Amino acid sequence: MYGIFSYDIASPRVGLKHGSRILDLEVVGLLGYFNDLTIDPAVFAQPALNEFIALGKPRHRLIRQRLNELLSDENAAFKDVYEQVFIDESRAKMHLPVRIGDYTDFYAGIHHAENVGRMFRPNAEPLLPNYRHLPVAYHGRASSIVVSGTSIQRPNGQYLGPDNQPVFGPSKALDFELELGLIIGKNNALGNSIAVDDAEDYIFGLTLFNDWSARDIQRWEYQPLGPFLGKNFASSLSAWVVPLDDLESFRVTGIQQEPIPLPYLRCAKASHFDLELEVILRTAAGDAVVISRTNARNLYWSFAQMIAHHTVGGCNLNIGDVLATGTISGSTPGSYGSLLELSWNGTRPLHLSAQTTRTFLEDGDSLILQGWGFAEGIRVDLGEVSGTISQKQQ
Amino acid sequence: MYGIFSYDIASPRVGLKHGSRILDLEVVGLLGYFNDLTIDPAVFAQPALNEFIALGKPRHRLIRQRLNELLSDENAAFKDVYEQVFIDESRAKMHLPVRIGDYTDFYAGIHHAENVGRMFRPNAEPLLPNYRHLPVAYHGRASSIVVSGTSIQRPNGQYLGPDNQPVFGPSKALDFELELGLIIGKNNALGNSIAVDDAEDYIFGLTLFNDWSARDIQRWEYQPLGPFLGKNFASSLSAWVVPLDDLESFRVTGIQQEPIPLPYLRCAKASHFDLELEVILRTAAGDAVVISRTNARNLYWSFAQMIAHHTVGGCNLNIGDVLATGTISGSTPGSYGSLLELSWNGTRPLHLSAQTTRTFLEDGDSLILQGWGFAEGIRVDLGEVSGTISQKQQ
Repeated sequence: MYGIFSYDIASPRVGLKHGSRILDLEVVGLLGYFNDLTIDPAVFAQPALNEFIALGKPRHRLIRQRLNELLSDENAAFKDVYEQVFIDESRAKMHLPVRIGDYTDFYAGIHHAENVGRMFRPNAEPLLPNYRHLPVAYHGRASSIVVSGTSIQRPNGQYLGPDNQPVFGPSKALDFELELGLIIGKNNALGNSIAVDDAEDYIFGLTLFNDWSARDIQRWEYQPLGPFLGKNFASSLSAWVVPLDDLESFRVTGIQQEPIPLPYLRCAKASHFDLELEVILRTAAGDAVVISRTNARNLYWSFAQMIAHHTVGGCNLNIGDVLATGTISGSTPGSYGSLLELSWNGTRPLHLSAQTTRTFLEDGDSLILQGWGFAEGIRVDLGEVSGTISQKQQ
Repeated sequence: MYGIFSYDIASPRVGLKHGSRILDLEVVGLLGYFNDLTIDPAVFAQPALNEFIALGKPRHRLIRQRLNELLSDENAAFKDVYEQVFIDESRAKMHLPVRIGDYTDFYAGIHHAENVGRMFRPNAEPLLPNYRHLPVAYHGRASSIVVSGTSIQRPNGQYLGPDNQPVFGPSKALDFELELGLIIGKNNALGNSIAVDDAEDYIFGLTLFNDWSARDIQRWEYQPLGPFLGKNFASSLSAWVVPLDDLESFRVTGIQQEPIPLPYLRCAKASHFDLELEVILRTAAGDAVVISRTNARNLYWSFAQMIAHHTVGGCNLNIGDVLATGTISGSTPGSYGSLLELSWNGTRPLHLSAQTTRTFLEDGDSLILQGWGFAEGIRVDLGEVSGTISQKQQ
């Protein structure tokens, strides 16, 4: 996994996470380990991964191969420079991994969409008519995406009070959403669409993503143009990005798509990924409970389909853009990716311990999303994204 | 009006529009005309206005006062350097005026919202219950905002065919939306809201804005999360930004707000602007017809209210962000700000000449938005934003 870190007086730079240590790629480059690959170490001396990402996949693969060689016998490879190239993670401050141009949030978790439908349109089909025909999505706010670990201030906003009149105050229904975020790795020009079978070339890698949501604000504001203040107070991105290349062992066929989508959304190869996901809620009092376990296989639409759809009208994507999947819920209660679903809109409190229940998030609660792939004896960590709720400043 | 222009071998730089000429502010600065104001000319040698905007309003006012003095007797002031400081507009290539971080589109034109309600929910109240309580808005796509004059490719997309099944093809309902765009002039930190009475300090200036819309694509995709591909293929921004300071003479009280909004949306002073707006449709065959005349007074929510609402939950705005107003329609057919309304969803073709009608835009059509203020003998031009529809490349 790649990320941006700083420590002591060292300015932000690109690192490779290696266990509990970070390999400082600027230093590795300055020491000449990439010289024969003609990789300028300056690409690692940046406050965001964008310049590194812009090198492109062929060069990423060369770098990765070199790093694997060096790390396979790290004591020998870095004999006299070990202290220079490795930083203990505990000494590092992590930064937002990419400079984000635009952020898009999909709605590709079909069980989540069904649950929302069942809750809010109880007498209708859970899925709206377009759901199985196109990957529904909306544009989100890029400026308020923060790196994992940043505390999240409970937003003020307008919502309906008990007498159905709008009132103003701190949200009383603060929620998380368990999502994956794609980091775009290549630009397409405005007007040029990306074919579904080429789409993965445009993904640099994957992150964990928490699309914090204020359900009371969202419910009152969202008609007819979608979510706005219910979402834009903050979203959290993990500090580490896993290159898509690293996830090849977990590639699987997705949920059967019925009806078969229009040709521009038909993928020749399996384009879903078998990735385990977990949500931990830790209260200020110290209770820490896994409140959900699910899998990225619950996404109806694949990453490739999201990109093909996003660009089919000519919209341009840029390196560093974030495309989030939407909430990933499984089909059973213990696998839901939001408190909205886990507490069924507040009607079924979640028991964290004998004394502690939750419907939505309380001040002081920490929410941690984790993920990994495991197949054929190989485990690949997706890292984690965490955030603690702080009280709204008065 | 300020904008970014280049010419011959001169790289993009900041210019002031002065009639049909552009005053090259980098050159003016290099010649020493701002020396006593301690304005570094480098701020004008930029491909976007962001660095100039970041100087802040007090310094903008000093610069503006100096420019007014110089221009009041330009032949004397620029006696030996006239050819260096003035560029004829016809020689200039205009660029997008700002580096846009995020783009938000409001829905503040009340007659537009009512018309859409009447069309698509004929048996219900035209306005949804939240409309008069908060400025409804959604996040748009920043990457596909282009400068006035850029040709607009008709987007492909998915929409419902005659048998109500989704089909794929070029949009058959391509439309414009007459809007104003605010250019944000000052950052607020994430978590800090902006009080409504301070909000205008955060506006650098105004532009004309055309939020091109593919109605067929939008209609099929937008439930439940709002517009996506129906909008993100392109939006057009005028090349020139009018500082808010220049519009002081046109300040007026807006439409009476009933019910009185919540305190965070109550503005102490008049915060609407009396600005005339006009839409011209020019066909490839040469017909050019004013198809709409309206006024910014038709906005229910003021610019200050939009900013107060946008940030009330803590969302951070950045210099260069665009906040568009939403379609500005008047209350009568000749004053509607979209073809959706002018042709009443395609049911009442617009007669451009004896032979030519339009429901939506055809390939080769050009759409031009213009605007100006006129009060107490003072006219302030808002410039124009134009675009010509080109066929989708196969």
